[in-house]
Amino acid sequence: MNLIISGTNRLGSNSLKVANYYKGELLLKGEAWEILSLEDLPHDILYTDLYGKRSDAFSTIQAKVSVAQKFIFVIPEYNGSYPGALKIFVDACSYPTSFTHKKAALVGVSTGKYGNIRGVDHFTGVCNYMRMHVLPLKIHIPHIKDELNSEGLFVNPITSKFVNEQIDEIVRF
Amino acid sequence: MNLIISGTNRLGSNSLKVANYYKGELLLKGEAWEILSLEDLPHDILYTDLYGKRSDAFSTIQAKVSVAQKFIFVIPEYNGSYPGALKIFVDACSYPTSFTHKKAALVGVSTGKYGNIRGVDHFTGVCNYMRMHVLPLKIHIPHIKDELNSEGLFVNPITSKFVNEQIDEIVRF
Amino acid sequence: MNLIISGTNRLGSNSLKVANYYKGELLLKGEAWEILSLEDLPHDILYTDLYGKRSDAFSTIQAKVSVAQKFIFVIPEYNGSYPGALKIFVDACSYPTSFTHKKAALVGVSTGKYGNIRGVDHFTGVCNYMRMHVLPLKIHIPHIKDELNSEGLFVNPITSKFVNEQIDEIVRF
Amino acid sequence: MNLIISGTNRLGSNSLKVANYYKGELLLKGEAWEILSLEDLPHDILYTDLYGKRSDAFSTIQAKVSVAQKFIFVIPEYNGSYPGALKIFVDACSYPTSFTHKKAALVGVSTGKYGNIRGVDHFTGVCNYMRMHVLPLKIHIPHIKDELNSEGLFVNPITSKFVNEQIDEIVRF
Repeated sequence: MNLIISGTNRLGSNSLKVANYYKGELLLKGEAWEILSLEDLPHDILYTDLYGKRSDAFSTIQAKVSVAQKFIFVIPEYNGSYPGALKIFVDACSYPTSFTHKKAALVGVSTGKYGNIRGVDHFTGVCNYMRMHVLPLKIHIPHIKDELNSEGLFVNPITSKFVNEQIDEIVRF
Repeated sequence: MNLIISGTNRLGSNSLKVANYYKGELLLKGEAWEILSLEDLPHDILYTDLYGKRSDAFSTIQAKVSVAQKFIFVIPEYNGSYPGALKIFVDACSYPTSFTHKKAALVGVSTGKYGNIRGVDHFTGVCNYMRMHVLPLKIHIPHIKDELNSEGLFVNPITSKFVNEQIDEIVRF
Repeated sequence: MNLIISGTNRLGSNSLKVANYYKGELLLKGEAWEILSLEDLPHDILYTDLYGKRSDAFSTIQAKVSVAQKFIFVIPEYNGSYPGALKIFVDACSYPTSFTHKKAALVGVSTGKYGNIRGVDHFTGVCNYMRMHVLPLKIHIPHIKDELNSEGLFVNPITSKFVNEQIDEIVRF
Repeated sequence: MNLIISGTNRLGSNSLKVANYYKGELLLKGEAWEILSLEDLPHDILYTDLYGKRSDAFSTIQAKVSVAQKFIFVIPEYNGSYPGALKIFVDACSYPTSFTHKKAALVGVSTGKYGNIRGVDHFTGVCNYMRMHVLPLKIHIPHIKDELNSEGLFVNPITSKFVNEQIDEIVRF
């Protein structure tokens, strides 16, 4: 099954809410995608799943990643780039079975004004390095706290429109 | 004391050897810098030191970071960018006392051909976002396995020359 | 005299208005800076001032660049990055007398939402490559058409505040 | 016809030699691509073909760009990024008929050690902004003066191998 990666292990994150929105919209289009939340990373991943090691906990995650052919990465802005937690996840995944020659759509999320432009650009570099195809239409959602209502829907119809367009493109990609 | 950050928790890393080289050269110039190796990060840092939490283990690290005014970051290339472990360290550090208005010199290290140009550029974005001054002279060391001899010295005199120039600049910076 | 570079040759550009605002604010702080507008580039610069050639028209520009020790670059967003006209100007300038070891402050301008985050990041890479010190505080001004009033002042006091802070930093830099 | 863009107007450039190599290899695979050398840009393009203007000279170029569905950009490193001449070309092209939803393969060329990693990354940002699909396999050719022999062939078989792989991918892309 294809995966929506919620790119932080912060509990109750807006990124997970955005991931859920994407999952719901994909389902409306007849596409069943699974969410992989980085909340589920092993707490001691730095010790258990890098440099050739592999824990049982991560093996379950790795199995899902290996099977998926397309990914949507929801990427919050941490210190002006992608979260360390997201890169640790990527660094822990097996190479090249995880991402090479697969497809990615990227979604930047920020509390501030710029929707994580820089972090999404940095992550594009990571994806291309791993030889992933990156969908050119990237979504940037600034002011995320104002953007999502209590039902997890976007307040701004422009945002919904672009997200919808991106979803159509990743489905056809 | 100023800090040389060895930017990976991989045991026996070349980055730590490079950090040691910098420490030695700085000492020859009368500058005592301390190495902070990311080997020393708490194994469960994802759980203990993000989003407002703080462990005793990291408190010791944080105290050193808070005091330092200058940093040399040795940054190996992982999946075409900086390591997740390095960004987790940055994400865990207190804001703004850790890095804001301080100074950084960057050193890229790779087993491949390009000396982590991209990862160093990405990390420049992170540093500038945190309002750190980044020394324009950045060092890129490709083919690191051939570059260091058994005593941890650079085989190639051009590398030593540029490292020496960078060290002079960070001392005066 | 230090230079404010208006980074486009488009006539009547908002970048030139922003450059004028910086000039006025600097003057209020007792700093006389000169504007260099890329409107003044030779029209056939591609033919007359690259790869070792030098026209009389550009010689006047080069003389000003060679003397300046600090630069403020006002950089509009063209196709998601800095303008070709700005990079042609940089490519035409003599090396290393123009920029090496000098200082730069960067200002991104866009009609859209993101204030040229990407173009300013790209230009940071160019500046650092030329071994220019780049001020970490970079200003991003989105929606520029709404941001400037008919007198060339910023409507939004937050923008004025950050611009003022950047100006103080470049003066002390 | 699809286009190979030689990304500089420098006469006798190595980029044009690389473009010719790609053209020849494509022909061997039964693909007829045309080279568009930026030597052919109007000398006064800054004045004649930006901001809504269009010269006869550029109209011929624009017609070729509008028809092409795939592009190979050969991008030399100028001041640590892509050439101003290449970005002026992009800025002059009509939007969105030139590049949107089309496909690009990128080739970095440098006289120095790093094969224009940074410039190719920057240009990826430009392409993605224009909603071009960028082939993840990007080629970086450092030390270009040693790399090409007098017949315009690559001396290093590793380079030929990766170029060949990239060509296969852009043909199928």
